[in-house]
Amino acid sequence: MSTPLDALVDYLARLPGVGRKSAARIAFWLLESDREFNTALAEAVGTIRDRIRPCSICGHYTEADPCEICDSPARERELLCVVEQSRDVMSIEATGEYRGLYHVLRGVLSPLDGIGPEELGLDRLASRVRENGVTEVIVATNPTVEGDSTALYLSRLLEGTGAKVTRIASGLPVGGDMEYADRLSVARALRGRRDIDE
Amino acid sequence: MSTPLDALVDYLARLPGVGRKSAARIAFWLLESDREFNTALAEAVGTIRDRIRPCSICGHYTEADPCEICDSPARERELLCVVEQSRDVMSIEATGEYRGLYHVLRGVLSPLDGIGPEELGLDRLASRVRENGVTEVIVATNPTVEGDSTALYLSRLLEGTGAKVTRIASGLPVGGDMEYADRLSVARALRGRRDIDE
Repeated sequence: MSTPLDALVDYLARLPGVGRKSAARIAFWLLESDREFNTALAEAVGTIRDRIRPCSICGHYTEADPCEICDSPARERELLCVVEQSRDVMSIEATGEYRGLYHVLRGVLSPLDGIGPEELGLDRLASRVRENGVTEVIVATNPTVEGDSTALYLSRLLEGTGAKVTRIASGLPVGGDMEYADRLSVARALRGRRDIDE
Repeated sequence: MSTPLDALVDYLARLPGVGRKSAARIAFWLLESDREFNTALAEAVGTIRDRIRPCSICGHYTEADPCEICDSPARERELLCVVEQSRDVMSIEATGEYRGLYHVLRGVLSPLDGIGPEELGLDRLASRVRENGVTEVIVATNPTVEGDSTALYLSRLLEGTGAKVTRIASGLPVGGDMEYADRLSVARALRGRRDIDE
């Protein structure tokens, strides 16, 4: 017999990173929490898809369209950073290091999954670069096989647009330990070495 | 500036066991999930407090009142298991080992937190034992200082009701390792030793 409590646990257990034990814990917690909190959470969950949408220019999730970043006069408009997903925009924004615009691919090239240049709208990215006087495209896809292939594809696709295509550095993470790093990261760290006084 | 997405992350991060990173992950997942799923989850969260309430007899969370367990003719009505919370009922039910009824205290005696016998309604428990011909009360509060004091208090309170008061065993967990067990569990395991052919 499925009770409303079982149903709630089932729903919660479908959330990413929430197992059945955590789902049960959350469900019981909700039974004892503020009624107003439950109402507010329910409202937030139920309406999020209507209130937050991809920006029609860069694809970043936003309340207003165009998004705050695309709309900001303080941003350097000739600098474009290509990321896999909206969350990556937030990671980069959190560093405070970047003042340009973004382009969210919502994925990476992955022929085996049937994701090609059309699925990612790479032509639209090329037009955006061409038509807006972009001088540098920083490809910040993940340092994975797919992320690297996507970067390589983009560098070819954007040849002749006048924009320089660069790739974010990969290597040992800050605070990492050579002894415990995987071979590929160590190889990348070596290959990406730079002069110390740079 | 707080966007609906920030608000959703804030709410999710208040759930037990969900940190800010997991909350953000869940929020983005909700942005890309089925619309119907979000609606169903929102509905389940928003109505759970109205649909599930404590059973008026045993205190276990239930849709119907009295709950399925209190209402079942198949249960042994002279056996009563006292637990701290509703979740513990589910743990015990999952073993399939117990056929009696329950009494959910919704807490344990904890004088420092201002939780005494009145707050837990222990008089109500005593009446229940007296008036229903209960012959054994199994105290299944956790093996903590508070759980043990509560058990001791109950054994005194229920003296003269005709019911035997027993305590669940504590010791090494099944599959545990003597080498890594804490001192108290080892001590309990020793003190609670039994004849092997029992």
